[in-house]
Amino acid sequence: MAVKIIECVPNFSEGRRSDVIQQVVDQVRATEGAVLLDYSSDADHNRTVVTFIGTPEAVAEAAFRLTAKAAELIDMNVHQGGHPRMGATDVIPFIPISGVKMKDCITIAHQVADRIANELKIPVYLYERAAKSDLRKNLSVIRKGEYEGFKDKINDPEWAPDFGQAVLHPTAGATVVGARPALVAFNVNLDTSDVTVANRIAKKVRESSGGLKNVKGMGVMLEDRNIVQVSMNMTDYKKTALYRSFEMIKMEAKRYGVNVIGSEIVGLVPMDALIDCAGYYLQLEGFSKKNQILERRLQG
Amino acid sequence: MAVKIIECVPNFSEGRRSDVIQQVVDQVRATEGAVLLDYSSDADHNRTVVTFIGTPEAVAEAAFRLTAKAAELIDMNVHQGGHPRMGATDVIPFIPISGVKMKDCITIAHQVADRIANELKIPVYLYERAAKSDLRKNLSVIRKGEYEGFKDKINDPEWAPDFGQAVLHPTAGATVVGARPALVAFNVNLDTSDVTVANRIAKKVRESSGGLKNVKGMGVMLEDRNIVQVSMNMTDYKKTALYRSFEMIKMEAKRYGVNVIGSEIVGLVPMDALIDCAGYYLQLEGFSKKNQILERRLQG
Repeated sequence: MAVKIIECVPNFSEGRRSDVIQQVVDQVRATEGAVLLDYSSDADHNRTVVTFIGTPEAVAEAAFRLTAKAAELIDMNVHQGGHPRMGATDVIPFIPISGVKMKDCITIAHQVADRIANELKIPVYLYERAAKSDLRKNLSVIRKGEYEGFKDKINDPEWAPDFGQAVLHPTAGATVVGARPALVAFNVNLDTSDVTVANRIAKKVRESSGGLKNVKGMGVMLEDRNIVQVSMNMTDYKKTALYRSFEMIKMEAKRYGVNVIGSEIVGLVPMDALIDCAGYYLQLEGFSKKNQILERRLQG
Repeated sequence: MAVKIIECVPNFSEGRRSDVIQQVVDQVRATEGAVLLDYSSDADHNRTVVTFIGTPEAVAEAAFRLTAKAAELIDMNVHQGGHPRMGATDVIPFIPISGVKMKDCITIAHQVADRIANELKIPVYLYERAAKSDLRKNLSVIRKGEYEGFKDKINDPEWAPDFGQAVLHPTAGATVVGARPALVAFNVNLDTSDVTVANRIAKKVRESSGGLKNVKGMGVMLEDRNIVQVSMNMTDYKKTALYRSFEMIKMEAKRYGVNVIGSEIVGLVPMDALIDCAGYYLQLEGFSKKNQILERRLQG
């Protein structure tokens, strides 16, 4: 029997004050059964992304404690940053890693949402696989208007929160909680400094404008290298593998006489997301990811 | 303290009669402390590759029992197959996996070789890291002449066995036992039925005839598919990655107007051997196999 492990990647609205960041992240460190894997703060975005794993119970507890501490220390009325946001703890996704199904993560999401609404008086919206309607699946649709706009938006009956009263928390705003598959942040670099090329290619590759399903993307200028990048979120690498967006970018880039010169993975990647790419390029026949990877067999 | 685990990958000379294959493999299943991970039979090669792990004592015991059963059920005088072979149990490598050093595997190899020679009356040669001279490091040098040729070769004083008398076992031939790092059995298929093409390409790719270091290879006919294959052992995938031999075969195949149509990995492969290929083809920059693979972080 595989150990039950869930991953949680909360984003909170502080990327500058290191004492605040530490106190929030410490909530994860202090929760028994939760293991902090990574946290990354961006001063321009004024936002921190935390990654931790653990048993379902430990992950739920750590996510709640982190949200409570962020509500205590962050005032959205004075928050400014380049990234869209609507709450002190902006979004909390739960991700199945091993021994658990998506439905287990949905259950955890509902439990944590309920606790945040009742104990912290922060209204909560459910998103992605935990959403109760199709309209609320997409985080950017929910978050439209951001913290400032939500003072009105929350009074619209169509935008009543899934948990809690239709009253924005006076400093912490509102929080989005959900469940989703593991996501891979995958960026592909091009040998041009023209960001319009990256944007045009991103449009061809991403789902929203006619490209590959489960791919989000946009063009980004890398000022320090004077090149551009197609920056992507691969939101379901099992269905839409990394090599497919990579090859599609190569193909679209030809039109502009531009070449792919490299790629990067930001943060963590599940082993299978890369194994699938090796399988494609090596044209592997009859390979079993379940049975032929030595490390997986050693775990029993 | 890591648990002491050794891997053993014996190859025995039966890939067609499933009752024989089962009885031989059952010897591993019946040995307490040994865990059968995989076995893979090839009818063309008329050969089965077994992979199991366990404590040093259990692995040594299972290897001996498997050799005894193969000697009982396989008659090399009537054996035919595409793969070079000299005994019913052709070769038994011991591989350090965790908590053990190469020298521990060498010790086990010598103990098992001694038992096979004394109890089963099968002469044994030591190879790779367990070899007692440089001349016997290379399996293909030891095995040259194969079972049929060994009736004479064993009488050459230069080729006296390392354990046992210089007398070939009447049905089981001779066995090669050794210790080595983990290797990957990697085969690349070509869209031709001309085995001379596969052999010529194998010569270009393998170390022994001017190709890539840490690559052994030969051409093999796949009768049932009417195609040929470059069958390789990648003996140190950390230094010589799979994609390098794969791309070299593609390049050499062009000369003959032949195409690579697929590949296969036989048995188990360490995760990093495939991650390295994904990294090459995706042109990954700054990727850390140690820190960015989720499963590796889960183990702490």
